[in-house]
Amino acid sequence: MKTQVGIIGAGPAGLMLSHLLHLHGIDSVILESRSRQYVEGRVRAGVLDSDVSRLFQVTGIGDRMMREGIEQEQMEIRFEGKQRFINWFQLAGGRKNMIYGQQEVVRDLIERRLRDDGRILFDAEAHSIDGAGTDRPSIRFRCNGEDATLACDFIAACDGFHGIGRQAIPPDRIRLYEHKYPFAWLGIVACAQPSSPWLVTAAHDRGYAMQSMRSLQVSRNYIQIALEDTLEDWPDARIWDELHQRLDIPGWTLREGEIVEKAKFDLRSFVCEPMQYGRMFLAGDAAHVVPPTGGRGLNQAIADVCVLADGIRDFYRDASEEELNRYSSICLERVWHAQQFTWRQTSMLQRHDFGNEYIRKQQLAQLEYFTSNKAAATSLAECYAGSRLRTSFLNQDGTEDPRIA
Amino acid sequence: MKTQVGIIGAGPAGLMLSHLLHLHGIDSVILESRSRQYVEGRVRAGVLDSDVSRLFQVTGIGDRMMREGIEQEQMEIRFEGKQRFINWFQLAGGRKNMIYGQQEVVRDLIERRLRDDGRILFDAEAHSIDGAGTDRPSIRFRCNGEDATLACDFIAACDGFHGIGRQAIPPDRIRLYEHKYPFAWLGIVACAQPSSPWLVTAAHDRGYAMQSMRSLQVSRNYIQIALEDTLEDWPDARIWDELHQRLDIPGWTLREGEIVEKAKFDLRSFVCEPMQYGRMFLAGDAAHVVPPTGGRGLNQAIADVCVLADGIRDFYRDASEEELNRYSSICLERVWHAQQFTWRQTSMLQRHDFGNEYIRKQQLAQLEYFTSNKAAATSLAECYAGSRLRTSFLNQDGTEDPRIA
Repeated sequence: MKTQVGIIGAGPAGLMLSHLLHLHGIDSVILESRSRQYVEGRVRAGVLDSDVSRLFQVTGIGDRMMREGIEQEQMEIRFEGKQRFINWFQLAGGRKNMIYGQQEVVRDLIERRLRDDGRILFDAEAHSIDGAGTDRPSIRFRCNGEDATLACDFIAACDGFHGIGRQAIPPDRIRLYEHKYPFAWLGIVACAQPSSPWLVTAAHDRGYAMQSMRSLQVSRNYIQIALEDTLEDWPDARIWDELHQRLDIPGWTLREGEIVEKAKFDLRSFVCEPMQYGRMFLAGDAAHVVPPTGGRGLNQAIADVCVLADGIRDFYRDASEEELNRYSSICLERVWHAQQFTWRQTSMLQRHDFGNEYIRKQQLAQLEYFTSNKAAATSLAECYAGSRLRTSFLNQDGTEDPRIA
Repeated sequence: MKTQVGIIGAGPAGLMLSHLLHLHGIDSVILESRSRQYVEGRVRAGVLDSDVSRLFQVTGIGDRMMREGIEQEQMEIRFEGKQRFINWFQLAGGRKNMIYGQQEVVRDLIERRLRDDGRILFDAEAHSIDGAGTDRPSIRFRCNGEDATLACDFIAACDGFHGIGRQAIPPDRIRLYEHKYPFAWLGIVACAQPSSPWLVTAAHDRGYAMQSMRSLQVSRNYIQIALEDTLEDWPDARIWDELHQRLDIPGWTLREGEIVEKAKFDLRSFVCEPMQYGRMFLAGDAAHVVPPTGGRGLNQAIADVCVLADGIRDFYRDASEEELNRYSSICLERVWHAQQFTWRQTSMLQRHDFGNEYIRKQQLAQLEYFTSNKAAATSLAECYAGSRLRTSFLNQDGTEDPRIA
């Protein structure tokens, strides 16, 4: 099998890259180890930056998002019984985020790619990469019990933190930076109307908690738990009890509903430098991971493939490798910005003092400062609103670039 | 011996309190365990917030400071060979800090108190407090080999972190919050012209370093060292070598000179809540300590005694204890703000990753963000410029209150 760009992984990064390349007239094949049903049901991130939702509209995959997504102008932070708001619509140039589940993004992209005769091979497990550092890379994969090879000009490894793409790079050609946090999160999806139509986070004495949503009928809630806790330690009743203790305030009670999904996840910060090796490029979680605290993961993945799609377009259209050669340095500046923002938010919002009351008290003082001082709140609001996308499909201010359409 | 306000400690807090009380027509006695020569030579902090230097002028102790002090509109942060500036004159409403050594402040205040017939007892060691929780507190002290007692209406414990004031409070009436840092600072005073006429800090791979000054002839430099290091580990040549490695950039070399003072100090964050017990009030380091990173220590001490002086004035003038009862809550809001700012600056500027390169990289990303993003830089600049003083001697904007003069 042959294509211009071989893409590993049908998550948001791989699918969006394939879509953008198609709009540039470039052929790609996506190899996805899981089934279509699996990837369309995988609940992950759920908040799109204004530039990302704008890009979806501009590139023709935003119709359902515009109907079903929930625009967000602010989020709420609760601590010591206080209710504070970070309003990025007011503080960050009228921008709005969009609540729209990652699995919905994946469904829309798959539907559109197939409509455009895009090739997505589900249940196709890429297991090795040949010639990653050469001009003729190829991906070996197994599909329907048969071994096959995808020959391509470029490989895009959009295969997540545990994917094979990064592992195919000689260790002496990359540096890995990683931090694991001394606590975990428990996330649930519940059939319950969200109690507030915006994100509510609590930096409670008992630990962090969040009320979010996937739609106006489905809630998504998180609580910080001990690293050693298992799902068995957290029966439904205990989860609701803990959520109430951390989130409820007088006049506001978290709405309960049937818990239809429950998962524990460890929190990790991770960056791979550079994000490329020869003709292979890493995008999204394959190259960098953040805890979900700042809502950066999905948005960073989309931002990566915007740069990559334009770089590959330049290669075929102008025979220029300039943008491709700069792929890592362009992305990493934004990636590290998102990393430090997420690091600071995680430090400010999670309980991580483990008995040192001083650390807890200065954390509460940080929360007070960042939610009441104009300059500090503006800096937070800008970070939550997200970096501007670097893509030929949008102008610097997030509007459609007329030179492209 | 008898007075209205018995003050323990002739540091900036105790002396300034005595001075402000005198301007309000209230009598005080200062007990200082050390000699006049010792306290006038003690090198400590050296940067005054704009409100503090303005207060010094307004209350008649600012003449020499205005002649010899060095006004500062900005500081410089160096990392990875970059030179960045935080300019509070531009970003925080035209404010200027003042470089003027703490020992100079102490000299000016002692000189003025004595000129106003103020009573300062040097070599007078306060060793116990009686009736701290009653209306008739007194301080027992030893002076010239004789035991004596100072009876007073109020006690102001301005006697530093190790002082007896806080220790006289029953442990169940206060809560102490403390964090000790896993590294130390080495500070030197050198007879050398400062190489830049503003503060230069370096968040270098080898650790933090700072070039500061006490005057245009005397430099004050700091380097971050290991907690277990002793002064014997740091002969002069090694200090200069390390300062050069951390601070020098092409075209700029740190000027050397004779090192006339050398000291190691551990870094500590500490807050005592509340800052009062009956008729005894804690001010300055007796109640709260910060690492020197943000230049907050001396300024916080002056801010405390501003509130205290007005509260005591209200007591005698209006028979109102309202301000005095609120002393702790008024001060602690500002104190915790300074604590969280210093905590964040210490986290951003010191090397504290101990081998985890991820933490170092996100720290560099924080430095990049806070020195290039407008909102983030503004928030830093405001914090460096300092909180507005709450005092009847100044208006909210730092100008002299005509109702007072």
